[in-house]
Amino acid sequence: MCRWFAYLSTTEPCLLEDVLILPDHAIAKQVHDRYLPHLFHYDPGTTQREISLRNSPFNLDGLGVIWYTDARAAFGECTGPRPVTYKMLRQPTADPIFQSLAAHTSAHCVFAHIRAASGATAITTYNNHPFTFGRHAFMHNGVVAHYDEIKRAMALELSDEAHVRVKGTTDSEMLAGLFFTYLEEKKGQNVWEDQHPLEEMKECLERAVAKVLQLQKEILGRAGRTPEASSLNIAITDGEQLLAIRFRNHDTEHPPSLYLSTRAGVALNRKFPGHPDLEGVDNGVQNLKGEDEHGDHVIIASEPTTFRKEDWELIPKNQCVMVGRDMVVRHAPVEVKLY
Amino acid sequence: MCRWFAYLSTTEPCLLEDVLILPDHAIAKQVHDRYLPHLFHYDPGTTQREISLRNSPFNLDGLGVIWYTDARAAFGECTGPRPVTYKMLRQPTADPIFQSLAAHTSAHCVFAHIRAASGATAITTYNNHPFTFGRHAFMHNGVVAHYDEIKRAMALELSDEAHVRVKGTTDSEMLAGLFFTYLEEKKGQNVWEDQHPLEEMKECLERAVAKVLQLQKEILGRAGRTPEASSLNIAITDGEQLLAIRFRNHDTEHPPSLYLSTRAGVALNRKFPGHPDLEGVDNGVQNLKGEDEHGDHVIIASEPTTFRKEDWELIPKNQCVMVGRDMVVRHAPVEVKLY
Amino acid sequence: MCRWFAYLSTTEPCLLEDVLILPDHAIAKQVHDRYLPHLFHYDPGTTQREISLRNSPFNLDGLGVIWYTDARAAFGECTGPRPVTYKMLRQPTADPIFQSLAAHTSAHCVFAHIRAASGATAITTYNNHPFTFGRHAFMHNGVVAHYDEIKRAMALELSDEAHVRVKGTTDSEMLAGLFFTYLEEKKGQNVWEDQHPLEEMKECLERAVAKVLQLQKEILGRAGRTPEASSLNIAITDGEQLLAIRFRNHDTEHPPSLYLSTRAGVALNRKFPGHPDLEGVDNGVQNLKGEDEHGDHVIIASEPTTFRKEDWELIPKNQCVMVGRDMVVRHAPVEVKLY
Amino acid sequence: MCRWFAYLSTTEPCLLEDVLILPDHAIAKQVHDRYLPHLFHYDPGTTQREISLRNSPFNLDGLGVIWYTDARAAFGECTGPRPVTYKMLRQPTADPIFQSLAAHTSAHCVFAHIRAASGATAITTYNNHPFTFGRHAFMHNGVVAHYDEIKRAMALELSDEAHVRVKGTTDSEMLAGLFFTYLEEKKGQNVWEDQHPLEEMKECLERAVAKVLQLQKEILGRAGRTPEASSLNIAITDGEQLLAIRFRNHDTEHPPSLYLSTRAGVALNRKFPGHPDLEGVDNGVQNLKGEDEHGDHVIIASEPTTFRKEDWELIPKNQCVMVGRDMVVRHAPVEVKLY
Repeated sequence: MCRWFAYLSTTEPCLLEDVLILPDHAIAKQVHDRYLPHLFHYDPGTTQREISLRNSPFNLDGLGVIWYTDARAAFGECTGPRPVTYKMLRQPTADPIFQSLAAHTSAHCVFAHIRAASGATAITTYNNHPFTFGRHAFMHNGVVAHYDEIKRAMALELSDEAHVRVKGTTDSEMLAGLFFTYLEEKKGQNVWEDQHPLEEMKECLERAVAKVLQLQKEILGRAGRTPEASSLNIAITDGEQLLAIRFRNHDTEHPPSLYLSTRAGVALNRKFPGHPDLEGVDNGVQNLKGEDEHGDHVIIASEPTTFRKEDWELIPKNQCVMVGRDMVVRHAPVEVKLY
Repeated sequence: MCRWFAYLSTTEPCLLEDVLILPDHAIAKQVHDRYLPHLFHYDPGTTQREISLRNSPFNLDGLGVIWYTDARAAFGECTGPRPVTYKMLRQPTADPIFQSLAAHTSAHCVFAHIRAASGATAITTYNNHPFTFGRHAFMHNGVVAHYDEIKRAMALELSDEAHVRVKGTTDSEMLAGLFFTYLEEKKGQNVWEDQHPLEEMKECLERAVAKVLQLQKEILGRAGRTPEASSLNIAITDGEQLLAIRFRNHDTEHPPSLYLSTRAGVALNRKFPGHPDLEGVDNGVQNLKGEDEHGDHVIIASEPTTFRKEDWELIPKNQCVMVGRDMVVRHAPVEVKLY
Repeated sequence: MCRWFAYLSTTEPCLLEDVLILPDHAIAKQVHDRYLPHLFHYDPGTTQREISLRNSPFNLDGLGVIWYTDARAAFGECTGPRPVTYKMLRQPTADPIFQSLAAHTSAHCVFAHIRAASGATAITTYNNHPFTFGRHAFMHNGVVAHYDEIKRAMALELSDEAHVRVKGTTDSEMLAGLFFTYLEEKKGQNVWEDQHPLEEMKECLERAVAKVLQLQKEILGRAGRTPEASSLNIAITDGEQLLAIRFRNHDTEHPPSLYLSTRAGVALNRKFPGHPDLEGVDNGVQNLKGEDEHGDHVIIASEPTTFRKEDWELIPKNQCVMVGRDMVVRHAPVEVKLY
Repeated sequence: MCRWFAYLSTTEPCLLEDVLILPDHAIAKQVHDRYLPHLFHYDPGTTQREISLRNSPFNLDGLGVIWYTDARAAFGECTGPRPVTYKMLRQPTADPIFQSLAAHTSAHCVFAHIRAASGATAITTYNNHPFTFGRHAFMHNGVVAHYDEIKRAMALELSDEAHVRVKGTTDSEMLAGLFFTYLEEKKGQNVWEDQHPLEEMKECLERAVAKVLQLQKEILGRAGRTPEASSLNIAITDGEQLLAIRFRNHDTEHPPSLYLSTRAGVALNRKFPGHPDLEGVDNGVQNLKGEDEHGDHVIIASEPTTFRKEDWELIPKNQCVMVGRDMVVRHAPVEVKLY
């Protein structure tokens, strides 16, 4: 099972090292470590099967990070931020390039993902999330059930433009292609470089999820089989807006963990006092700023990045979280018929 | 033989893609391509040996790039820019990570280097230049003659602080360690994070070069042998100042090529009109700026990055070029006794 | 354009280093070197377009090698040799692992391939040829024209068993999947681990090629377009038999070069005297064997590996070469309707 | 802390997959798993410090494997087996090349090592053990204490021939260089390709260890400091003989674990019945051989590779194990003055 982390703030950039590497439970360390507050109390009926769904301990199949910069906009190529990609297959804490990039780069929007390859999918940087489609980035934690059996049917659903942008071989990237196919259908050929209202993105994602469930039902149904449930914890951004869902099409089983915080960014920023989890970090000019001076921000992550439980809430099952350019967080149910 | 490229401007950032990848003769393409104006006319007595010294056609043993960011300064860790490192062993034009970083990153100071490993030195990213020592970066094109025979004597000259910072196994990084040992001797333990006057850096580099020549003479002399000449084309920066030398301790043979330009940056910046060498680049909002609005800048490179010969001058043999924070370029002879 | 090399002998193993690295024109050096005897005299009407088809000078996107061992047979897992795979993305001559493996490994069957990625296909080891399917190996030089437009239709043709074995994203591996689908249809579910008569393999390969041409015609025809020709130089082995074709579906244009030799293996084996192309090789105990003691063998390669032209013949356009366990070489036309 | 595994048998080759990958506690899985029978009962006075010395749980900094082949001997280059090297930096179970090599390669002598880099040493394949010096291979688990402070003094002790063969930057490879320097002093310039009596190798290894302890004492002594103890679990082979030590120069602290077995190879070989630890392995033609038909063999490893405790004995502290071409195992104390 993979893990992912998303940071967004229109006013307060974070240092990549502060959010991805230094915390005791940073994503770069989640390759062999779990921290899941609220979760086991959330549903007392948790089955052994479900615990194991959420607890495969290792994510050693590669890290991907994207962050947004204004460089191309400054050179007249576009308006608004665009994503830069760094991906690798090694242990993140043993990669001096990742450490150098993270130590010297700040950004208003950061997506990071560590992979535990499912099935026999190729382990290659092209299969590391996040996947970029023009100005948009997409990442996924979970599994599209029966992917081997439905992938050719999914591929046929994709528009030519979306299909040619799918470079790897994962269920996740194909699902992204399906989402962008529906978005392109609605918004036209500039879909890749334009921004879109969050509601429209939510509709297209729901349509893509529903199509996957329908194909599973159809294709397995022909052989008299019933599909297993799929876990689809997904985040999408254009660098200024964020949409995430925590989803599993099952009436009792839960999706993997997914947490939301609008406060943890303060503790994760060395400009600010009191970061209980950044032990060992010399933050130089201490108290550069007061805690209340920190800009509005949102973090959504598979596991909390700080140990202050009160800063994190578990996103309910089959909920969608939308964060606009005004940094207002809205919740809405994922509207997909489950069976 | 390696190749390197340095860009510095206190006012005009360049897009990495514009200087390192897109030009027809960008350093990312110098892995299998040569362009050496002025050079063969410079010295009609060029011997075959010398032509071959300057012409080993392939540089396939890895690329290194550093650029400076203000991120750590903004987070209270230091004052002034600090270097970020990206290094890899693959063909640069086949590396999607390098392409993504270069497309979305701009900087006021960029060093890039492609390596052709000499002798049997390990081919590993740790041996790719540039080497960073605190806020400073160092790169080299050429060879320290007889390095295998003098390296242990060189190592003994290094201060403990410099020695522990040498992570790889090249002649170049050991020479950098010697340079920083002398700078530390002169400037004290803050040498790594301070800026230093260019004259002092020149003195320390000359002292390091002289020490290498002396060790060669002593150690080979014991066996009745005469050392071969060394080629030392070196660039050093702290992100705001630049020092470079083109050096070979031989009375008729020349060092590898090294060129200087204070104009080519305009043609290499897509914000500006008329870049004859950027064919195929769509610079979007054309004529974003007028040619005379481009900031003062300096490029020093093993080979010209544009084909407008009049924009480039060959740096004379055994000369030092110093560029201060005021972007004024000064020339001075390298003061090392050659034999 | 890629390059490939195949060696087969039931009695005379070759040292990988002798055939892949040491010769002046070994495949490991064909990353930036061409040698094409007979070819330009073969067809005086060669057009500029065709010369460029055959001459893209660089193959820097990765090397793949398979060789066959009897280890699994010795441990009771199967009968007959099985393929081992080594693939990497670096310059072959700068990879110490490849050099170590090649220096210490001999085999009766070796396939090697260097890649120049076509189009925007991912550069990853999974896309390096040869591709293995059970005991069989498959490699390709050339391009399936219009692959982006026909790949989903091709995927639908594949059997589930073949489809799940396609791990990468190239036209070549999908074509291999199509060939094995037809072979599976004919030979049943043990197709992967069984040996098959060369005639049956030829039929299935012809059927796969014909299907590709038909899909191109159908899919482009819907838009009123005419497909370009495809180049399909393909080799297939089970470790004891070899089938190769040199094919282009065009009445005047030619496929890439492809040569056959039944003598060059002597010069490429250090046990034997007189290897004109192995300068610099110390073959230790000289004249270990006499030239006529060398076992029957066949080499098929994109370019000759030795410079003794008389040892190599150009395989005619649209011909198939079949080599059985008796090492007898048979030629037959590729029977595919071209338009 | 690293882990290593050594297999030697003059008569019974092992399949690499059987010994390195398939067992539940194979070295490829020891990146995040510990199994230490006998050890905690061995010394009831085990301190917390010592437990942590032996228990750093992760070895993620790279795998190295060497195995011996007769290929070069068959091609007249030498007599006797020579080592092939495979090294990489990724998670072993996620590397398809390693899996392919291991599935199809058998050998009479195999060394394997997983690394947990100590200090700030570069993480590069050149620093992965085993290190080869001509026909010999050398690997180490533990740390040369104070290496940064003594390494230049160690380097000065090396012969030119040994020094030039040290390609990486680890304490372990420098110690190997010192061992071979003393062996060269005793046996002359053919040291690299000759076999040597185990007693002579033991003497040279003891001399190298003693020199390290002396340099630590001298160099730290100048500053009034007392050296910490060093752990030196070392294995050396020429493909037909094996020498190993389990050593720590401390009167109460113990070296890392090191086990010996002369029986476990049967359970690790799929030709033989009853391999309790190879669950999930289909060994095809079952009962290919009877248990007593297995050849004499020796395994020495940081941790047992099977869970049959009775097949493994813990090598006592500061003992040397020597295995000759006759497969007789001899024990002798390591004769080095400890303080």
